[in-house]
Amino acid sequence: MDELRSAVEFVKTKTKVNVNERDIEKVMAALNSTNHFWEAIFLSQKPFAVVRETINYLISIDFVKSNENGNLMLTQKGKEFIEQKGIPVVKNYTCQCCEGRGIVFTEIKDAYEKFKEIVKTRPDAIVEYDQGYVTEETAFSRIALMIKKGDLVGKRLIVFGDDDLVSIAAALTKLPTEVLVLEIDKRLVDFINKAAKEYNLNLKAIEYDFRNKLPDELVKSFDTFTIDPPETIEALDLCFTRTTSSLKGAGCAGYFGLTNIEASLSKWHEFQKLLLNKFNAVITDIIENFNHYVNWNYLLPSLESNLNFVNVQPKLNWYTSSMYRIELVKDVEIVNEDINCELYIDNEAILYKG
Amino acid sequence: MDELRSAVEFVKTKTKVNVNERDIEKVMAALNSTNHFWEAIFLSQKPFAVVRETINYLISIDFVKSNENGNLMLTQKGKEFIEQKGIPVVKNYTCQCCEGRGIVFTEIKDAYEKFKEIVKTRPDAIVEYDQGYVTEETAFSRIALMIKKGDLVGKRLIVFGDDDLVSIAAALTKLPTEVLVLEIDKRLVDFINKAAKEYNLNLKAIEYDFRNKLPDELVKSFDTFTIDPPETIEALDLCFTRTTSSLKGAGCAGYFGLTNIEASLSKWHEFQKLLLNKFNAVITDIIENFNHYVNWNYLLPSLESNLNFVNVQPKLNWYTSSMYRIELVKDVEIVNEDINCELYIDNEAILYKG
Repeated sequence: MDELRSAVEFVKTKTKVNVNERDIEKVMAALNSTNHFWEAIFLSQKPFAVVRETINYLISIDFVKSNENGNLMLTQKGKEFIEQKGIPVVKNYTCQCCEGRGIVFTEIKDAYEKFKEIVKTRPDAIVEYDQGYVTEETAFSRIALMIKKGDLVGKRLIVFGDDDLVSIAAALTKLPTEVLVLEIDKRLVDFINKAAKEYNLNLKAIEYDFRNKLPDELVKSFDTFTIDPPETIEALDLCFTRTTSSLKGAGCAGYFGLTNIEASLSKWHEFQKLLLNKFNAVITDIIENFNHYVNWNYLLPSLESNLNFVNVQPKLNWYTSSMYRIELVKDVEIVNEDINCELYIDNEAILYKG
Repeated sequence: MDELRSAVEFVKTKTKVNVNERDIEKVMAALNSTNHFWEAIFLSQKPFAVVRETINYLISIDFVKSNENGNLMLTQKGKEFIEQKGIPVVKNYTCQCCEGRGIVFTEIKDAYEKFKEIVKTRPDAIVEYDQGYVTEETAFSRIALMIKKGDLVGKRLIVFGDDDLVSIAAALTKLPTEVLVLEIDKRLVDFINKAAKEYNLNLKAIEYDFRNKLPDELVKSFDTFTIDPPETIEALDLCFTRTTSSLKGAGCAGYFGLTNIEASLSKWHEFQKLLLNKFNAVITDIIENFNHYVNWNYLLPSLESNLNFVNVQPKLNWYTSSMYRIELVKDVEIVNEDINCELYIDNEAILYKG
């Protein structure tokens, strides 16, 4: 059997992810371009478990080897295979001026400078709430995108979960009429409210767990929402029940990140159908690698991996997500009740232990 | 009744497009930023007919006036309304380095220079086939995006309709194993085949009308397709029946443009559901204003408008579309038979005469 087909069967069985030969090719193209596991994920944009098991398979058939430092290298057999299949080296086609987003935030530069000062004392990302925050450039690019799309100036913004501190970024521009944050982590609630007071911002954070129903006064009250949701299907379903219920109605927008790293394209497909059918939302933008996440301290300890190529400190911000913008084409039917579910871990999550 | 609500009712009745107050706001923000009709469409990213009728309505209530040169201006009443509603001026958040695409094509610059030479003698865009081709920078950005996503190097590319001449751009890079063009306009078929011969390119064009079934040997044969489809729902349904039938199967990709100018977000919503359900495709990228179209000669004569603000020569490349990338998550059921339908004109088309 062809090695690509065998790799597909192996990876599918190990990960329960719906993988195809093109996915394996993309991982191999990444391995043809880097010796660093975390960069291989970034370059291939394939789920963590898929990349890990593809590498395990390629090691088992002597196409790849891992040295004592955890560096990954193609063997002679691996190089010959790649050449025969015409699998290329990954070259750089990303615009460096805007880090591939197509968006710049020069117009709100003053707010950006203030933001950088404020976040120097931000709370660390902690595993209890699956936290990992985006770079300051990402936060401001997100705000710039909202302004560009007519979703921030003179509008009410609601932020569901804010370790990114985009609420502060938004409020610093003085453009939205109001910013409200619903956040489960009391450290962040306090941090945001303290910044709001110190800098006289039209911004408030309240403690909230989205397994609980939305406070009634927030239903159908906002023009725009933003969220960085966990990526199990149940969490996505729940989050979007909450977020869309907070919007006034048709024409209102939502912004969120979705990774390729913890969400396969099969999951994307299922979730897109949910957005279009259940939530009456059209997708207006998907910008790959828009959101860059700062490496978090708890990564390697939380993975508990015994693979030496995994147990290397990331040498880059490897974790990214695509920026989605959706818009309601019709009002949604409001469902507002307590709902319990598994938020963070499914077979595609990087912390999945099998 | 509030002027925004009245505008919505007026525009809905006139255009049969599902409009909301946010859409009217976006047109007003554009009018707060430019006096040029075609720029107002570009800035608002709303359907042509919606922008035209919104302006007609605002003129009728003395919020806007049009001078003898067709320049549009807010009246004092209009300015006061805009201020009261907090409708902003449109500012520039687009990265100028990459024209907002996030993509650069420096790696294939040699091919780009050759392309610019070749296209100097390209056939004009003609109304019979609803033609209007993209800028050279757009064509090469599209190729760069395909390479970046792993869809061109060592792959078979099929191009459905090519007044953009992206087939020549792709073949010049020498990266795809094969490029095939299916094109209804004999002038373009001849032009492409002539360039292929002169420049020794792995490229062929054949005459084809997509109302006819695909030649059998092309079914399930290609890795990647690209198309710039007409935007009636029947044409989209037909085009994607053809394009997805040409793909080998799961993991294969398609690239196409979709405008906001001749397709409302309600149409986008309907079409996205078609993609996800009927064609087993997930949407991986939507990049707004990726495709910039060179102004075509036949625009004003074909519109036959008696509105003086419409009858001004565009002073910019105003017509843009979003770049979509889709990927099959599963093989599609092949349907390959002759199908007749209305290709170009529905109530959202700029040539719609009511």
